[in-house]
Amino acid sequence: MKARLWMPDWVGQYRREWVSGDLVAGLIVSVMLIPQSLAYALLAGLPPQVGLYASVLPLVAYALFGSSMTLAVGPVAVISLMTASALAPLAAAGSADYLALAVLLALLSGVILLMAGVLRLGFLAYFLSHSVISGFISGSAILITLGQLKYLLGAPLPSGSALDILNALPDALSHINPTAAAIGVSAIVFLVFARSWLPRMLMALGVGKAASELLGRLAPMLSVVIATAYSALNQVDQSAQVSIVGAVPAGLPGLSVPGIDMQVLRALALPALLISLVGFVESVSVAQSLALKRGERLSPNKELIGIGVANMASAISGGFPVTGGFARSVVNFDAGARSPAAGIVSAIVMSIVIVSMTRWFHYLPHAVLAATIIVAVLTLVDLKAISETWRYDRADAVAMLLTFAGVLLLGVEEGILVGVAMSLAVLVWRSSHPHMAVVGRVPGSEHFRNIDRHEVQTLPGLIALRVDESLYFANAQVVEAKIERLVQEHPDTRCLLLIMSAVNQLDTTALQMLIQLEASLSARGVTLQFAEIKGPVLDKLKSSELGAKMRDRIFLSTHQAFNAFAPQAHR
Amino acid sequence: MKARLWMPDWVGQYRREWVSGDLVAGLIVSVMLIPQSLAYALLAGLPPQVGLYASVLPLVAYALFGSSMTLAVGPVAVISLMTASALAPLAAAGSADYLALAVLLALLSGVILLMAGVLRLGFLAYFLSHSVISGFISGSAILITLGQLKYLLGAPLPSGSALDILNALPDALSHINPTAAAIGVSAIVFLVFARSWLPRMLMALGVGKAASELLGRLAPMLSVVIATAYSALNQVDQSAQVSIVGAVPAGLPGLSVPGIDMQVLRALALPALLISLVGFVESVSVAQSLALKRGERLSPNKELIGIGVANMASAISGGFPVTGGFARSVVNFDAGARSPAAGIVSAIVMSIVIVSMTRWFHYLPHAVLAATIIVAVLTLVDLKAISETWRYDRADAVAMLLTFAGVLLLGVEEGILVGVAMSLAVLVWRSSHPHMAVVGRVPGSEHFRNIDRHEVQTLPGLIALRVDESLYFANAQVVEAKIERLVQEHPDTRCLLLIMSAVNQLDTTALQMLIQLEASLSARGVTLQFAEIKGPVLDKLKSSELGAKMRDRIFLSTHQAFNAFAPQAHR
Repeated sequence: MKARLWMPDWVGQYRREWVSGDLVAGLIVSVMLIPQSLAYALLAGLPPQVGLYASVLPLVAYALFGSSMTLAVGPVAVISLMTASALAPLAAAGSADYLALAVLLALLSGVILLMAGVLRLGFLAYFLSHSVISGFISGSAILITLGQLKYLLGAPLPSGSALDILNALPDALSHINPTAAAIGVSAIVFLVFARSWLPRMLMALGVGKAASELLGRLAPMLSVVIATAYSALNQVDQSAQVSIVGAVPAGLPGLSVPGIDMQVLRALALPALLISLVGFVESVSVAQSLALKRGERLSPNKELIGIGVANMASAISGGFPVTGGFARSVVNFDAGARSPAAGIVSAIVMSIVIVSMTRWFHYLPHAVLAATIIVAVLTLVDLKAISETWRYDRADAVAMLLTFAGVLLLGVEEGILVGVAMSLAVLVWRSSHPHMAVVGRVPGSEHFRNIDRHEVQTLPGLIALRVDESLYFANAQVVEAKIERLVQEHPDTRCLLLIMSAVNQLDTTALQMLIQLEASLSARGVTLQFAEIKGPVLDKLKSSELGAKMRDRIFLSTHQAFNAFAPQAHR
Repeated sequence: MKARLWMPDWVGQYRREWVSGDLVAGLIVSVMLIPQSLAYALLAGLPPQVGLYASVLPLVAYALFGSSMTLAVGPVAVISLMTASALAPLAAAGSADYLALAVLLALLSGVILLMAGVLRLGFLAYFLSHSVISGFISGSAILITLGQLKYLLGAPLPSGSALDILNALPDALSHINPTAAAIGVSAIVFLVFARSWLPRMLMALGVGKAASELLGRLAPMLSVVIATAYSALNQVDQSAQVSIVGAVPAGLPGLSVPGIDMQVLRALALPALLISLVGFVESVSVAQSLALKRGERLSPNKELIGIGVANMASAISGGFPVTGGFARSVVNFDAGARSPAAGIVSAIVMSIVIVSMTRWFHYLPHAVLAATIIVAVLTLVDLKAISETWRYDRADAVAMLLTFAGVLLLGVEEGILVGVAMSLAVLVWRSSHPHMAVVGRVPGSEHFRNIDRHEVQTLPGLIALRVDESLYFANAQVVEAKIERLVQEHPDTRCLLLIMSAVNQLDTTALQMLIQLEASLSARGVTLQFAEIKGPVLDKLKSSELGAKMRDRIFLSTHQAFNAFAPQAHR
């Protein structure tokens, strides 16, 4: 161990040739981050500067503690939606209480993530299946879009579930603000154009592919600039009652530790847990796919710590929950980021924005921010995944659809809880139904195969049953019931041979089951025998009473057990 | 289908020669049931007649809807303790509100059990491992014993956790009621004697083994009769302030459907769920072991329905939660019960007791009931199981000890929740860590074995990895990480062969993982290949994009894959 101050690994390995990539990527990400941080604060029901605050210290914290070289951390759409939905029942959006709760939520999420990382619980996140996450993201994206329509159109729409908003929509459409709607819809058209057509046009004009795509990504910033200029010149807030961002306080946030109240903590505990879970799963999957592209290693537990500390940093600087963003990280990667130094560059740019540029956002119309959000999240809706999954695996598709419907009809937290419950139910169901096969001998060989699928030889009076999974509490009863049924269906059975080639573990419940099974079979004149027990399982079994009792009935191979029974079969 | 009124299967199959066995068993069970039903009502904090009510209609309901031929249903110790612990925070023991809540709890448990049976969710009960149940029962038995000391000794002891009672014990011992304590301790001595020595003495006197043991089982009734007579003759309630049962209303309960209040329902939902779970697990394990002794079939889902309807019957006749009792069912079986008609006999006897004999219980001292409870539950404490489990499987022993400690230190519900959480954690942990082995060829054969355990041949540049479990969301990431690590540790790898002989399922998450893995490996010049894919999995895989891409890289056997790679290996 070298005696030096602690610093992240990448600092020691930093190479001079990385500087330009990190610098360019950091700048480009900042230009994306400015409109996004303002927009996601709006989505979370918070004042715009809170979005900016959440884009400084968390980036530095992640650079110091995270394990991905290219993940871009900050406010993201789904987590902002979850924040709004967690806080809505507790305080009025925009109030001081609401802000304090958002800060506390970030702190709680940070602590949960950090603890999960220290306790090495990263694997727990894998229990949210791909289908459940996909259904959750698609549902959230649609819910976010519906929620932004009030800003996009300047129309009086409620917050709440998808049904609430859709119900109010027909009436609200006759009360839209034409100027706001014109600005919002123009912004959407421009952003869609910029995303899909601009890169192709630029490429046709001879600009390189990568550069064209990056320029396309900067369109949101351009739309913000144009719309703000238009809005300021025409004083649209006065002349047409268009809702604008208004005064954004300048200056870096003071650091503080949020006050903690037990009752509030209890109300925020579940939302914080769900935000941690979703934030981690989203972030780690982006980080993983980027790391694999460059053959880098990613440690899930270190990722938990990185995002955890980032959220704690957000909390002490007056921000709200953050995580690694998908689009932003891809841009960071494509723009040539080689190390987390790119994140520090972004943080510096964002600080400069906060210190000296916040007054420029005064006239920014909310409709443009809504357009930015909608265009960003609608790309997350993956309806094709539903049909593809339906074709590939019905159970997965049902889990996906239920989570999707749960988010839209019940709410964000309820939706993810539906998903978690579905995932656990699938796990429990699967675990309780191990694959089992009655086998027979392949003629002229020592191989044994499923009698339902192959032409094999069996011995009258002998049932040879192969269990294709470990025996433990979750499946012990099902295995026992299957064996009892087999013996009852074949009243001439004199021997039940259990082939344990796939049994890696045999817990206490399974041992009790085997003891009971042995007694009940022998009471009916059926001998229980074992074959192909693995070394560690055999050692364990021998230490038990059953092992001693079964001593002469344990065979090394199914072949030997068959040969031993053969004389009786033909008697 | 025959057009006839619905009736249970056993009615149609009833044989004349079963009558005497059913009659004798029904009578003997009633004689056990009288003191037990009074005692368990006391344990649940309810008036004595409620225990009697819970011993009439539930028995008839189970006889009509259950699937066990010999299960004896009624109040049992652990469920009575759970009832007391569920109701204690909601109303004062003995109050009218408390009674109404007990009835509602029985109704709720009944509905939950019935629905679980109709939805065929019986398998869920198997997710409580043997060790967790054993720890729970032992802990509950000790808690019950501590809770009964106040009646046994006539001492001022609090209700609550084991620590609360133990803390108050030294002080309470100086305030015991000497007469109550004398009665209680004598009853315990008598009951222990009757249980362990009486059968042996009777056998020495030439009485048959079965008859001797049955007579031993009737000792609690005898102690009730003797103690009541003594208590009445000496008017111990007046002369020595001994707590007695007092007036027990006569007459059968009126049927009624309990009133339902949403807030109360919410408070009782979790306790009702836990009572259903524990009641079912306890009951089905007794019923199962008795059914196996006679080679009868038991349907877990029909059992759920039977116990569910029994609880609903208890509720509408003013009773509290019931389930199948262990000791009582064994006595029923040993006394020769052949069909649920024995239960109907018991129900008739209990009705007669309620109509015409309740005044006989007036002078029954609470200390005798406490003695009955203590002697019954202390046999459930299985400390040997802890040491045996510790030797056989450490993880199981830890789960057992934590559940045991949870019941004693935190409470009954908390204890069972600790157990459920432990069971789920074990399931999740196990599922996320599939067994995997890098294999090589056994020289001169077509067999492949783990390179860590056998002397086998490998090919330079080829890693052959066998996954010993289905691939699905819970283990996909772990398998991917293992493969990535393997390839990084062997930089000369050119081919990664995944042997899928144990893969019975491949869900969407696992498919996505394989797609990502294939891309990431091929980016590093490593070819992904599959071998020994099972038929159903192969069909599914072929329908996906990955299947098409991998077409030429799927081998029937590991042997073929090895042969195909061999020329490259030696290049």
